[in-house]
Amino acid sequence: MIPFEEILGNVRDRNPLVHSITNYVTAGDCANILLACGASPIMSDDEGEVENITALCGGLNINIGTLNQRTVASMLLAGKKANELGHITLLDPVGAGASRLRTETAVRLLREIRFHVIRGNISEIKALTQGTRSTRGVDADDGDRFTADHPDQTFEALKAFARKTGAVIAVTGAQDLITDGERLCLISNGHPMMSRITGSGCMLSAMTAAFAAANPDRIFEAVCAAVTAMGFCGEIAHERLSPADGTGSFRVYLMDAVSRLTGEQLRKGAKYEMR
Amino acid sequence: MIPFEEILGNVRDRNPLVHSITNYVTAGDCANILLACGASPIMSDDEGEVENITALCGGLNINIGTLNQRTVASMLLAGKKANELGHITLLDPVGAGASRLRTETAVRLLREIRFHVIRGNISEIKALTQGTRSTRGVDADDGDRFTADHPDQTFEALKAFARKTGAVIAVTGAQDLITDGERLCLISNGHPMMSRITGSGCMLSAMTAAFAAANPDRIFEAVCAAVTAMGFCGEIAHERLSPADGTGSFRVYLMDAVSRLTGEQLRKGAKYEMR
Amino acid sequence: MIPFEEILGNVRDRNPLVHSITNYVTAGDCANILLACGASPIMSDDEGEVENITALCGGLNINIGTLNQRTVASMLLAGKKANELGHITLLDPVGAGASRLRTETAVRLLREIRFHVIRGNISEIKALTQGTRSTRGVDADDGDRFTADHPDQTFEALKAFARKTGAVIAVTGAQDLITDGERLCLISNGHPMMSRITGSGCMLSAMTAAFAAANPDRIFEAVCAAVTAMGFCGEIAHERLSPADGTGSFRVYLMDAVSRLTGEQLRKGAKYEMR
Repeated sequence: MIPFEEILGNVRDRNPLVHSITNYVTAGDCANILLACGASPIMSDDEGEVENITALCGGLNINIGTLNQRTVASMLLAGKKANELGHITLLDPVGAGASRLRTETAVRLLREIRFHVIRGNISEIKALTQGTRSTRGVDADDGDRFTADHPDQTFEALKAFARKTGAVIAVTGAQDLITDGERLCLISNGHPMMSRITGSGCMLSAMTAAFAAANPDRIFEAVCAAVTAMGFCGEIAHERLSPADGTGSFRVYLMDAVSRLTGEQLRKGAKYEMR
Repeated sequence: MIPFEEILGNVRDRNPLVHSITNYVTAGDCANILLACGASPIMSDDEGEVENITALCGGLNINIGTLNQRTVASMLLAGKKANELGHITLLDPVGAGASRLRTETAVRLLREIRFHVIRGNISEIKALTQGTRSTRGVDADDGDRFTADHPDQTFEALKAFARKTGAVIAVTGAQDLITDGERLCLISNGHPMMSRITGSGCMLSAMTAAFAAANPDRIFEAVCAAVTAMGFCGEIAHERLSPADGTGSFRVYLMDAVSRLTGEQLRKGAKYEMR
Repeated sequence: MIPFEEILGNVRDRNPLVHSITNYVTAGDCANILLACGASPIMSDDEGEVENITALCGGLNINIGTLNQRTVASMLLAGKKANELGHITLLDPVGAGASRLRTETAVRLLREIRFHVIRGNISEIKALTQGTRSTRGVDADDGDRFTADHPDQTFEALKAFARKTGAVIAVTGAQDLITDGERLCLISNGHPMMSRITGSGCMLSAMTAAFAAANPDRIFEAVCAAVTAMGFCGEIAHERLSPADGTGSFRVYLMDAVSRLTGEQLRKGAKYEMR
């Protein structure tokens, strides 16, 4: 049983400050979702200040979309400082597998920083685990819908990756998989329309960092709760669509839903199973 | 006759991946409009990866708003790689004429890269064709509403520019003009409110790159269809406005309209003439 | 008496072009609010063009969120050029006090550039006046709700800071304080929900630069009008919320309200007192 109400309550009460080093495509969306869920955002990517900024925060969210040489150096500095201070760290390896720079950066970050959480789509996580290079841009590769064909193998590979990195691994897609190396949570909340707006993955990562930062003593459950919350809010947003509404309104309604979500609503709406 | 249904159908079916090197002001809007029209976005601007990223895509959208020395180098690398691979390339010379750096960068890109499409407002296109320096920021210079006074001269100048560059030229404003050097299409869809939100030009460029990438055998028609689609969606968005709605809702409704647009709707709503 | 109708009328009639060197988190929001209030935006941060760009504009808005070494150099160049040309300059010291880099950059900008307006929350302004380092990220520090405990001391400190810098100081929070060193305006428009979306401060700064640029002969009144307008639009946005609406819709409605605001509405809705 995931204690959804307690976990969300802690986010709202503790109002964790989350430092995001993230891409400029969805930075505003990430800041807004952090505020919506009850956390506070700060974005900063200069080598001259990332350690100071991270020191003020409870969580660090590193997202490698639109990375550049300058920001990669900042990611390393911030991650090491966060580790030193025992802060929650999350890696979103956006586009890992799509370019050598992204794959190598993600691998280097994993080697030099201890992450509490790694969240990506299956192509990105595969790129990290297997050195695959097959990602098609930033969306999940259709050829990779692994849950249908070889679910058990995938589960084992993810558990092994979690044990190797010491991180909770969250693979999101049509169905979401969360593992800490022992437990495995399958979440079926969500709506396909979420993949028709940019930043649903980035926003989830930011929110997950906040949930973990507010619940550092049960990170696995916090990650499960964040992923469930985002999927469930996608369902709420979809239900609100009028005949003239499309992806623009969906994006607004998703933010609305996160900002209004209660622990009770989440507990009742959650669709997950533990394996 | 522009085959609107076939062109839009191809965007939806072929789901082209478009690499955008673009400004951080409207990068999120560009990603969302690409998803809304049926394409997929990837943004990346580091010299270390732009060639890899472009190689994965079907189209490259170069937008020089908020350019800097680092990203200009990336634009050149990505453009050359896209040319080498025969990918669709589009230039949006945002603010050309507003600073020497922008004008010179646009001119340099035109010299070193072969573009299939160039889309801008009349001031920007003039800055490229005539070396003018009169642009007032990123919006069309009011003194330049050339269509009223000397339309024929303008048409000829644009056709000559299209022949010289080998690109389809799209000049957007109160009325839109598209030419491939031979044909000229005048489009009167659109609504003045589109100029009251940021990024309507940037979003159109991104969407145009997607339409061309999905229809590489008839780029001129694809550009006409994209420009018509954006203008028509602006009309739909305007019609939905309630008395309390303003530019915030208009922006949401525009995205809604693009995401819901059907080929039939577009064919019926298109207002254009061929010259 | 603040001549709200005349001030807003001037923004709409004179349509000032505002150059913003600003963070990538809220750059799009700043561009949209400038368009909504009747001004025009241009964003540019490369050393190679900021002087050219600023020369075209009526106002310069410097916001140090997501600053980096490269953009700090551009801020200095642009600020000096704007001073040389007598353009309106505004500083938004986002996160001053949160890192040494931000505090030092803000202090350096204040030393090398003459600002007509400085707008921030109380923690940021304190960091500038007192060298405090206590800011908690980019939001106002709760421990700093100075209006309740020692309002008179705070008023005097702000007046002294205004006289020292020659700038109109605008401290925004639950209650807003504006001073030019002699006069003091207390504004109680606004709604707490404004702090649950990112960029309400950044947007206000951009809009304030526009109001001052369109009313250069009465900057103090223009700043008061901009701050009042933003707060009042926050109230309008809040009133529009339906039961399912949250922070996503609030953000859209805020933009709507700014784009539809009339001088008469603003005059009637303003809640301020002069001290």
